[in-house]
Amino acid sequence: MGHKTSRKHAKKTTEAAEAAVLPLDAEEVQVVGEPSMSDLLRVDKGFVLAEVDCESTPGFSGGKSAGTEALALHAPEVGEWQERLFAESRAGSKRALLLVIQGMDTSGKGGIMRHVVGAVDPEGVRTTAFKAPTEQERQHDFLWRIRAALPHAGTVGVFDRSHYEDVLVVRVHELVPQAEWSKRYAQINAFERQVVGSGTEIIKVMLHVSADEQKARLTQRLERPDKHYKWNRADIDERQLWPDYMEAYQVALTKCSTKGAPWHVVPANKKWYARYAVQRLLLDRLEAMAPEWPDMGIDVEAELARFDAS
Amino acid sequence: MGHKTSRKHAKKTTEAAEAAVLPLDAEEVQVVGEPSMSDLLRVDKGFVLAEVDCESTPGFSGGKSAGTEALALHAPEVGEWQERLFAESRAGSKRALLLVIQGMDTSGKGGIMRHVVGAVDPEGVRTTAFKAPTEQERQHDFLWRIRAALPHAGTVGVFDRSHYEDVLVVRVHELVPQAEWSKRYAQINAFERQVVGSGTEIIKVMLHVSADEQKARLTQRLERPDKHYKWNRADIDERQLWPDYMEAYQVALTKCSTKGAPWHVVPANKKWYARYAVQRLLLDRLEAMAPEWPDMGIDVEAELARFDAS
Repeated sequence: MGHKTSRKHAKKTTEAAEAAVLPLDAEEVQVVGEPSMSDLLRVDKGFVLAEVDCESTPGFSGGKSAGTEALALHAPEVGEWQERLFAESRAGSKRALLLVIQGMDTSGKGGIMRHVVGAVDPEGVRTTAFKAPTEQERQHDFLWRIRAALPHAGTVGVFDRSHYEDVLVVRVHELVPQAEWSKRYAQINAFERQVVGSGTEIIKVMLHVSADEQKARLTQRLERPDKHYKWNRADIDERQLWPDYMEAYQVALTKCSTKGAPWHVVPANKKWYARYAVQRLLLDRLEAMAPEWPDMGIDVEAELARFDAS
Repeated sequence: MGHKTSRKHAKKTTEAAEAAVLPLDAEEVQVVGEPSMSDLLRVDKGFVLAEVDCESTPGFSGGKSAGTEALALHAPEVGEWQERLFAESRAGSKRALLLVIQGMDTSGKGGIMRHVVGAVDPEGVRTTAFKAPTEQERQHDFLWRIRAALPHAGTVGVFDRSHYEDVLVVRVHELVPQAEWSKRYAQINAFERQVVGSGTEIIKVMLHVSADEQKARLTQRLERPDKHYKWNRADIDERQLWPDYMEAYQVALTKCSTKGAPWHVVPANKKWYARYAVQRLLLDRLEAMAPEWPDMGIDVEAELARFDAS
């Protein structure tokens, strides 16, 4: 994890590169030593999921209106960074960014897609929602469909659920024998090491809601006919397995939080906070990647002269 | 083309269905007989591309600030209609919507993606940018990669360039013999008839900039180092072929503007207008499709009782 000590904005001007070495505006400085959002939410040694307070808002002292405002304020930056990442790829860079979103039903994954990912140029982002594998997908290794959905150079990939379902729902329901799923943690780590090694940085996020909050959200779905299309009778039955899911998450989070691709647990009972936190994680990472407008080696005068001749 | 006489908003409430039969707010009414955006921009019999004024703003009497404001005002509606379309698909509907965007280089296709399409939930939209075909794609019929990119039920598909390149750039540069490309107009019409028949409505848009406006936009790219990544030396050379491209467009627009999948030519020298017009075309069509929140047959009381027991 690269830590950054500044929060510079992506400016669509040539001064942006120079700005990086100019004195920073006090408001934009994150004091050295102050923990980043990643520091606050990262799954490190000794992490215990049950100890996370789903109502908490680490790294943000304001309330809902301030959080919503901050989200809107920074939304354009995500798109601007992505444009730089794409520009860089035109000059040969292979870098990309992958955001993996996991969470129990109603944890707010859709809201992250609309409110955080939605700020990126649709051509610069590729969202994949992983459902129960199709017949064709089942003919392959569990990572086959994941590999096929990895982001191209210069783009941001977003997974709404992911290969982690293969050690979550699959483990809880014993959809494959233990001998098989138990090997997957190491397979996932090896896979992600490969992905990171090839230039795609990975941010992994679990949106963590409490069982009570889920009950409230599911009840609301029932009470709003325009949300009935999201209803699934099995959702209530799955709640019986809540402790099993939490155990499966605890294991996955700790076995697969690596230096190259750490897990973050985002308290998600407050939707506005979860969105703010994921946006911050994305922005911090993009800032650390610091893609620059590439020098494309264009002879501007010569090209302008060609224009006049045209 | 279904015409609609009202512009109702997609409301995320149960009253939306009832609202459709309630007296309409005067401000929301489009007077019967007033031409819709599609009426104003559609390619009908006798259409001549050369007669379109790229600076004009059909159907909008205000200027840039009013147009930008209108775009922002209506942006959420596009997403709301798409959610209904998706909801409907959960109850078995196979309907989808495909937006095809064509235009010369710098005509503003990217801006449509960011400012119009960007308002839709990223999970409800699938954007495909068609580049020169890959080696694999060349092994297949020209419609092969197009079919693979068609939107799923309940979603909005967006093509940034499309199968029309196979009768535009391919025709201008004679990339295949005339005997081959000349058959494609009929093949395209048959293909689109199939697509529409299977429940996917199609909106086709040509963003039409003038040659002078393109020159100004390309010059600006050269003058802004942060836009150099978009530069392509061939862009200037392609300008020499402008009349050939206009001829190819004229033929494609008139041969392939069908009742089921008409073409629209959007004057695009004013970016704000082009965005407004495409948004209006999208909204008018979604309103005419009028997807409704489906009755999922849920016994709400029984489900709530199951909750209490859980």
